[in-house]
Formats: sequence, C-alpha cells, structure tokens
Amino acid sequence: MSRPVITAFRASPDRGRGLARDMRVRWAFEEVGQPYDVRLLSFEAMKQPSHLARHPFGQIPTYEAGGVALFESGAIVLHIAEQHPGLLPEDPAARARAVTWLFAALTTVEPPIVERSMASILERDRPWYAQRLPMLDENVRTRLRQLSAHLAGADWLDGAFSAGDLMMVTVLRRLDGSGLLEEWPDLAAYIARAEARPAYQRAFADQLAVFQAASAG
Amino acid sequence: MSRPVITAFRASPDRGRGLARDMRVRWAFEEVGQPYDVRLLSFEAMKQPSHLARHPFGQIPTYEAGGVALFESGAIVLHIAEQHPGLLPEDPAARARAVTWLFAALTTVEPPIVERSMASILERDRPWYAQRLPMLDENVRTRLRQLSAHLAGADWLDGAFSAGDLMMVTVLRRLDGSGLLEEWPDLAAYIARAEARPAYQRAFADQLAVFQAASAG
Repeated sequence: MSRPVITAFRASPDRGRGLARDMRVRWAFEEVGQPYDVRLLSFEAMKQPSHLARHPFGQIPTYEAGGVALFESGAIVLHIAEQHPGLLPEDPAARARAVTWLFAALTTVEPPIVERSMASILERDRPWYAQRLPMLDENVRTRLRQLSAHLAGADWLDGAFSAGDLMMVTVLRRLDGSGLLEEWPDLAAYIARAEARPAYQRAFADQLAVFQAASAG
Repeated sequence: MSRPVITAFRASPDRGRGLARDMRVRWAFEEVGQPYDVRLLSFEAMKQPSHLARHPFGQIPTYEAGGVALFESGAIVLHIAEQHPGLLPEDPAARARAVTWLFAALTTVEPPIVERSMASILERDRPWYAQRLPMLDENVRTRLRQLSAHLAGADWLDGAFSAGDLMMVTVLRRLDGSGLLEEWPDLAAYIARAEARPAYQRAFADQLAVFQAASAG
C-alpha cells in the first residue's frame, strides 16, 4: 500500500508552534510508526473546488490512503489508531474509554479554548474585549480544574498513553501564552510529559521545518 | 446482558424540545432497536462525586453497560453504532467517512452554534450583544453554506442515513428559533427528513415525557 497523504498549511498561521491540526495527525503517525506524505496548501488553494471535494469546510488536515478519504483531525487520528497498534488499548472497555477522551478533548475542552483564542485575535481592539475576557478565561478554567481533578496525579488520562491523551495535549497546547496553564502545574507537567515523547518531537520538528521553509522561500 | 443505562436531566433546560445531549443517545438506541434505561439527575446531583466519577466534566449523558462506562455523546453514539448494525455502513471506507461526519458535526458545525446560543442566553443584556450578534450569525452561516453545498440536494450526508447524519441533525436543531435555518430550505428539509424517522419520534417522545413529568411534579 502506498503511503497515506495528508494536507497541511504551506505557511501555518501558528508560525510553526505545532498548534495547527495537522500536528495531531503527524504525531499519531509517528506514534504508530507509519510513514506518510504531506501535501502543502496555500490559503487560496484551500478554498478551491478540488480541496472542497476533500474537505467540505475548506480546512486542513485531510487524509487519503488506499481508497479511504477523510477529513477532521479527530476522525483521522481515530482511523490511524484503529489501523495500527499503539494508540488504543486492546481491552474493549479501556479502548472505548480512550475514544471517550478523544471526544472529550475535542468537544468539551477545546471549544472554550478556541473561543478565548479567537476573541483574543479578532476582538482584541473592541471596546468589550476587556470586559469579556474574564468570562472567557473562567470558561477555560472550569475545564482545566475538572481535568486536573480527574488526572489526580496520574501520568495519563486513563492508564497508558492513548489517542485520548494525544488529542487532549494538542488541545491544551493551544493555551500557550494565555497564562492559564501556569495555574495548574500538574497539567503543565502532563503536557511536558507528552512533548518529551520521541514521536511528538519528530512530528513537531517536521511541521516546524515546513514553516521555516515557507519563511525562507 | 442487562440493559444499558444512560443519564439525562430530570428537568431539562430546553423544556423538552429534544436539544439536550441525551436525545442523541436515545435516538441512536431507537435506530438500532436496543432498549435502555434512563437515570434522571438534578443539577445538584450532577455536581456530586458519584456523578463526577462517571463524568469528570459533570455533564449528561453518561453510558453504562456490561462493564463499559462512557461519557461524551459522540463517544456513546459511536459505541452504540459499533455494537449494533444500522448506524454505520459495512464498507470500511464508507464507515470511516460516516465517522468523519460525526466528528464534523461535533467539532466544526456545533461550536459556532453553541457560541451563538450561549451568547444569546448569557450576554443578551450586555451593551455589546447587538454588535457581536452579526459576527456570531455569520460564523454559523459559513458552516451552513458549506454544509448545504456539500449536501447538494442529497437526502443524507454520504449515502444512506448514518450516525453522522444523526449527530449533524441534533446539532442543527440547536438553531431552532434563531431564524438562520430558514435561509437554507434544503437544510430545513434535511432536518425534517430525519425528524420523520420513527426512531427519532420515539426518542423525542420519551425525552418530552421526562420533562412533562418534571413539570407536573
């Protein structure tokens, strides 16, 4: 079978900090030892019919391999985790719990983080920004507090490292620079533990190289 | 095996309109013909340690069956769809695409809908609400426009009705009363097509009966 092909930003708006959603897929591939190819897209290319046929919402990443064409980082990471050992436990009940954490990262923890982040980009100059920010911060803190209580000093969310941890860490990393993570040293340590994994480091280096090439070009 | 047990609001804030997240799980059970039991929770009970042990973020629904304990409506619907025929295609590529649509509903379409809805509840009396609303509406419209373009007159998102459609319809229904769905008659028809399914109607009636009992009590 030929290598899977994913799409990523040619020039990521995160400037190579590993916050774009291709990072999740790259990391998953590295954890399971599956080589892959990347097709880089400009913002203009992402709005073209050829890309919209792959991703109806005009985003990255997409995934294509052996007749399977997917979008949505959550679906792609889950697919990779189902195709290869290493990201989901063998026991069916533990496996279902790991999938639950993958969903929790994307649908319960990420939305208030993205909402805060988008407001800080798009509404920073608006008169209401200073008044709304404490509310946005508190929505994030609620989730961090609950997540910290769940972790309760454990290394990972549920037993061994899984696709659920992979997704949760990429979601939490989006708080980089907000000052909020610093309020929960256990969550900062959880992220650092994940970032120390060789698979994470390879994926991070690869996405950074793309940004550096774009900047030099 | 004993029946699965899910949790739901004793008195849903949506007043029985089928917008709470247990509706997704009820509908999935009805589509596959799996009887289930419901444990109703007050808002106080949802914050107690016994519930937080089942759901670290203190929400509903949860799912328990045969030694498997899950939370997150997306994970629960996916689990039901994997355990029973009826909500995912047999063909592996089509199956992975249906799962992609389940993720797309939750992570790409739902966040701007929830953000708009929460602002209309929590910030309606704030001086900035009237200025922010057009932006929130436009974020929702972007997704509806893309979804409509993808549907392109088809009955369902990708071939036969799947867990992806089930989730997308429950997400779109949260726009009820916003006036936005009326701008896309094809999406309104898509929702109506789903609501006409006998499984949907049974699930809807069951959650409505819970709210009516709470109101009468």
